[in-house]
Amino acid sequence: MKKISKNSFKDSHHITELKLCSVRLVDNSEFPWIMLIPKRKKISEIFQLNKKDQNLLIQEIVYSSKIMKKTFKAFNLNIEKIGNIVPHLHIHVIARSKKDSSWPLSVWVVKKKSYFKQDLNNTIKKIKKNFGI
Amino acid sequence: MKKISKNSFKDSHHITELKLCSVRLVDNSEFPWIMLIPKRKKISEIFQLNKKDQNLLIQEIVYSSKIMKKTFKAFNLNIEKIGNIVPHLHIHVIARSKKDSSWPLSVWVVKKKSYFKQDLNNTIKKIKKNFGI
Repeated sequence: MKKISKNSFKDSHHITELKLCSVRLVDNSEFPWIMLIPKRKKISEIFQLNKKDQNLLIQEIVYSSKIMKKTFKAFNLNIEKIGNIVPHLHIHVIARSKKDSSWPLSVWVVKKKSYFKQDLNNTIKKIKKNFGI
Repeated sequence: MKKISKNSFKDSHHITELKLCSVRLVDNSEFPWIMLIPKRKKISEIFQLNKKDQNLLIQEIVYSSKIMKKTFKAFNLNIEKIGNIVPHLHIHVIARSKKDSSWPLSVWVVKKKSYFKQDLNNTIKKIKKNFGI
């Protein structure tokens, strides 16, 4: 497996640290979208985590999902482990709305649109607040 | 939430029953692709499962992932909870290969292609064998 590059998650912004995962906002203003990145080396699949960490992962997915649902009044959550391009294990948690640009299709069918600076700051602030920061 | 329709998972084929989930093969010959469908009523999000079921879910994801990785010599696994169209909670577990038709992009960017009958039967047989059936 490739070494984790410092730049692997460069199009994202730090939100908080949970016990297992770093939480980062993905810089795509089309969707409220965070990533959970387990702080374990050389891990690309969930089954490579030990059982304790697997249970932590599902707990942190649940915890973060509830926050994203509440913060953005999401109609539905997309929770995805893809990793075809960036191999280090990371889980996307995306708040979907019936009015977003790719509904009801996958987020992957539309082009990314970076945040304007003010929107980015407001979004980070809003999510951090609901993570209790 | 909509009632689970008998037809919600009609483009799929029964593989086996785990403690929490039914396992079904998705009828898309582009990718070796199963779904895990928790046998709980009126559930559309992982956080709606109780904690015991959440832990069962991650265990069954891990178990099924290993089987899909081994059965299809997958380079990578995509594990996705989407549910924008079929709301009843279901988790996609997809074996990805660098030679598949959408690599390294998401499976959702290419059109579905149904299996020919013989391939379908062979694929079901192969997966069932590795689930110990």
